Amino acid sequence: MDLHEKHLTMAEWEALILALIHRAEVGEVAEPLENVHREKGSHYDVIFVGGGAGGRFGSAYSQARGLRQLVVDKWPFLGGSCPHQACVPHHLFSELAREMDYMRWNAETLFFPKFDDAKASIVEAIEVFKNGRNNAHAFMNWQSKEQLDMEYILNSWATVVDKNTVEVNGETFSCDNLVLATGAGTYLPPEIKGLLAEPGTPLGDRLLKRGVYDFSALIDPGLDYEPTSCVIIGGSKIAIEYGSFYQAAGCQTTILTRRQLMRTESLHHVDEDLRRYVVKNMKLRGMEIVEGCEILEVLGTERATGVRVLLADGTEDVFETDFVFIGTGERPPTKPYVDALGIEVDEKGSIKVNSRMQTSVPGVYAIGDLIGSPMEMFKARKCGMTAAKNISGEFAEFDFSEYPDFLHTTYEVTWVGLTEDEAREQYGDISVLQMPPKGIEDHEVCLPLSEGTMLYGHSRPELTGFQKAIYDNRSRRLVGAHHVGYGAKDAFQYLDHLIKKGITVDEMGEMNELFLNPEHFIQLSRLRAGNRDLTSL
Amino acid sequence: MDLHEKHLTMAEWEALILALIHRAEVGEVAEPLENVHREKGSHYDVIFVGGGAGGRFGSAYSQARGLRQLVVDKWPFLGGSCPHQACVPHHLFSELAREMDYMRWNAETLFFPKFDDAKASIVEAIEVFKNGRNNAHAFMNWQSKEQLDMEYILNSWATVVDKNTVEVNGETFSCDNLVLATGAGTYLPPEIKGLLAEPGTPLGDRLLKRGVYDFSALIDPGLDYEPTSCVIIGGSKIAIEYGSFYQAAGCQTTILTRRQLMRTESLHHVDEDLRRYVVKNMKLRGMEIVEGCEILEVLGTERATGVRVLLADGTEDVFETDFVFIGTGERPPTKPYVDALGIEVDEKGSIKVNSRMQTSVPGVYAIGDLIGSPMEMFKARKCGMTAAKNISGEFAEFDFSEYPDFLHTTYEVTWVGLTEDEAREQYGDISVLQMPPKGIEDHEVCLPLSEGTMLYGHSRPELTGFQKAIYDNRSRRLVGAHHVGYGAKDAFQYLDHLIKKGITVDEMGEMNELFLNPEHFIQLSRLRAGNRDLTSL
Repeated sequence: MDLHEKHLTMAEWEALILALIHRAEVGEVAEPLENVHREKGSHYDVIFVGGGAGGRFGSAYSQARGLRQLVVDKWPFLGGSCPHQACVPHHLFSELAREMDYMRWNAETLFFPKFDDAKASIVEAIEVFKNGRNNAHAFMNWQSKEQLDMEYILNSWATVVDKNTVEVNGETFSCDNLVLATGAGTYLPPEIKGLLAEPGTPLGDRLLKRGVYDFSALIDPGLDYEPTSCVIIGGSKIAIEYGSFYQAAGCQTTILTRRQLMRTESLHHVDEDLRRYVVKNMKLRGMEIVEGCEILEVLGTERATGVRVLLADGTEDVFETDFVFIGTGERPPTKPYVDALGIEVDEKGSIKVNSRMQTSVPGVYAIGDLIGSPMEMFKARKCGMTAAKNISGEFAEFDFSEYPDFLHTTYEVTWVGLTEDEAREQYGDISVLQMPPKGIEDHEVCLPLSEGTMLYGHSRPELTGFQKAIYDNRSRRLVGAHHVGYGAKDAFQYLDHLIKKGITVDEMGEMNELFLNPEHFIQLSRLRAGNRDLTSL
Repeated sequence: MDLHEKHLTMAEWEALILALIHRAEVGEVAEPLENVHREKGSHYDVIFVGGGAGGRFGSAYSQARGLRQLVVDKWPFLGGSCPHQACVPHHLFSELAREMDYMRWNAETLFFPKFDDAKASIVEAIEVFKNGRNNAHAFMNWQSKEQLDMEYILNSWATVVDKNTVEVNGETFSCDNLVLATGAGTYLPPEIKGLLAEPGTPLGDRLLKRGVYDFSALIDPGLDYEPTSCVIIGGSKIAIEYGSFYQAAGCQTTILTRRQLMRTESLHHVDEDLRRYVVKNMKLRGMEIVEGCEILEVLGTERATGVRVLLADGTEDVFETDFVFIGTGERPPTKPYVDALGIEVDEKGSIKVNSRMQTSVPGVYAIGDLIGSPMEMFKARKCGMTAAKNISGEFAEFDFSEYPDFLHTTYEVTWVGLTEDEAREQYGDISVLQMPPKGIEDHEVCLPLSEGTMLYGHSRPELTGFQKAIYDNRSRRLVGAHHVGYGAKDAFQYLDHLIKKGITVDEMGEMNELFLNPEHFIQLSRLRAGNRDLTSL
């Protein structure tokens, strides 16, 4: 369908995408969606292969800089897996988890009825998501065309012929620069037996055993039964986030993880007090967490019946379940690029890039999840922007080694900068401003208190969260901030910026807080800022 | 009770405060709580009269700077009216309002039952607050003594004898500097008849007519019946916030206001699009808003039965109700200080101060609500800090003319900097990055989408909120930010700081956002930052 001269409304876009997704589901080959300015020829300054977060933002930036750009995606919408199967459903599920948790703790008080576990359906939550997701898809397509002037071909596979040639639906497009941006997928550790329906099925078109799901299969084709329990393989963010949702939905959930929870390579700067609070509260809500174990096999022939593991004490055990969820992290499938371009990859298959997003092949860039961790939205988008800047002739680097991070349990857990231990090691003399203060137990004080924990604060103080700000006493600079609760996540974006700019306790104390600010960093800082020699609080 | 050598636990503090409040309620004269270092004599560098936000933070800062300080409060706890009757209950009620609203919109979908209006009790919500509030009180007393080393006398009235002398419980204390910090109370417009039980009762020990409440009387003595409807006099923040709670609790609420809602003197920088979204959604939830009217009288002899008003069209009308709530703002009762010190006040009775918090009487400072608008927490606390700095010999000024602001409906509504109209007038050439974008209706797009609006986003896009960032095109600086939704409030503290520092669209675009950040300012900025000539989005 040629959309170049058309201006679809949001409703028209939504109906179109829905129809195309349906046609793909039933196996029909659906026509591509094209917004291509063919009158300008088939040569581009840059072609983005993959129109997820990185490809879309890179395209927008390229357009803004006056480059001619084309982006190609297999799906009939821009935005990638995030709004279709990954981050957005996770956010919906985390909101529902928080709500179910809140309704359960407060059941039979105030206007809260007895919580009906039988009504807490994982399948229904998935349906709500699938019924709503096409609106975001529609908006990405609308905005990318009407506001950002991108050229795109959607619902189409791009074949990289060489570094200057991409083939789409039999048509050849040439480019001066190529940006690879096709993302990653769940990593299935080969040493775990029984994950796949048919052993030996290659990773590309794998079919997980019935009863085994990753975040993607959970949505498409979708979970089609209410599990009685869940066993999660791995301790990634996905494991914690989806696990907390399943548990809140009344599905007894067990996490089997090799390392201590939140002590994985992919999560850095996790403060021990924050970790303690998070894990304690997951357990308080009934989750079972088995650390230090090695997953051997998913049992069951027709469908999963349990997971066999080697426990930390050297004995074997079986965790029976009708729902196995894979939370072992993601890796990018990069073989097509190695084959076509001879591009260099690392030991996990991620494409190697320098700080300008340049690969080993001149003129070829790689961005987003395709280049490895962290597989986060900000990184994908800024990789796209960085590639676009360099292609437009600007020397631009992007260092994503330090960034604010978060995950969901039934709480929002957010952190940036150094942990207390790291700060002590690096600076020696530090002050820690935290709530509850050291020496006061969680249940003794209703603080931190703010939007989302007000009711807990007046009945169950131990559920109101945890927070900590860390200062280097010599420079008086903020070096770390950590928060469990709600409503502080947005602030951490700016705290990250301010920490990098060297914000001090004195400057923090001069800010204008909005009472009851979810993290109490400003007022706690002010309570100490008067001290010539900074001390903890 | 002499607490100087004692170290009460949180639980001991809580029990003690509860007992003292109870004794006061039944009319007993209870003993004072004293943490006074009498071994150091009765002379102080500074005495704070009033231990609310301003007095407590001023005391903490004075202590930190090595000044000897005493703070006196009439209540048996530090922290003032905020955690006892004002901001904290409002926050609890706003959380409950949001929750009831959420449960009502989603009723009979997913795990949400039919919402039972009969169970939504205002009285019960007040009880929950009163049962929980003493924990925060206990913490203020504990922290102020154990962590901040303050000297204080609580549960006691301070009489200002002269600018260097304060009498407490018959004992005289002298000081070099005096800081007045006793706050404000609801303003009862004298032209409105029938507010008081006995006409002519002075403001200090007034007794409102049965059925007439302000935020303070709502808590103490407390509403003791479930109203069938509510009529709110005035259009202040309190009117909007408490009114939204009453409406969510199933109590049909009408706001009678002289000016357009959110177009009052005390609320500056309210963007018209933001206002439209907020008011539209209050009405969507069933609230009646009557603008441009003049309140004449609260009807009823034994108890309130209705409110008589002069409407904008010049006709009179009566709004019948069994619950009248006063939302006309607050004013400080300053007559005792005028009488004792001859201190200068303005036409509303607020004490006049310069930017150093100095009053017309040398050595006497005034802070917080006592000096007038804005009656916000950040101002009170920073006033206290500013007074302490000046007393300690530092030249310190505090300009609170520009600050981030917020209010609650069933949403969090937050803003900082200029409105679109103000920015256009001041800078001429501006860009507006907003969601939904201009030309797209609220119901057409599920954005903004983030924690708290995920479920709305997938079923009722029109409820997901509104946001707008405004840039001056010439300097590319952020000049205003506006948000309706959840979870962005905390960020506005830092946005306020960054706007004052001159943050540009380019710097915003380089930040590391945390997906799905409640306000999409960073990524929207990045989508435009590539443009040499900034344009709206």
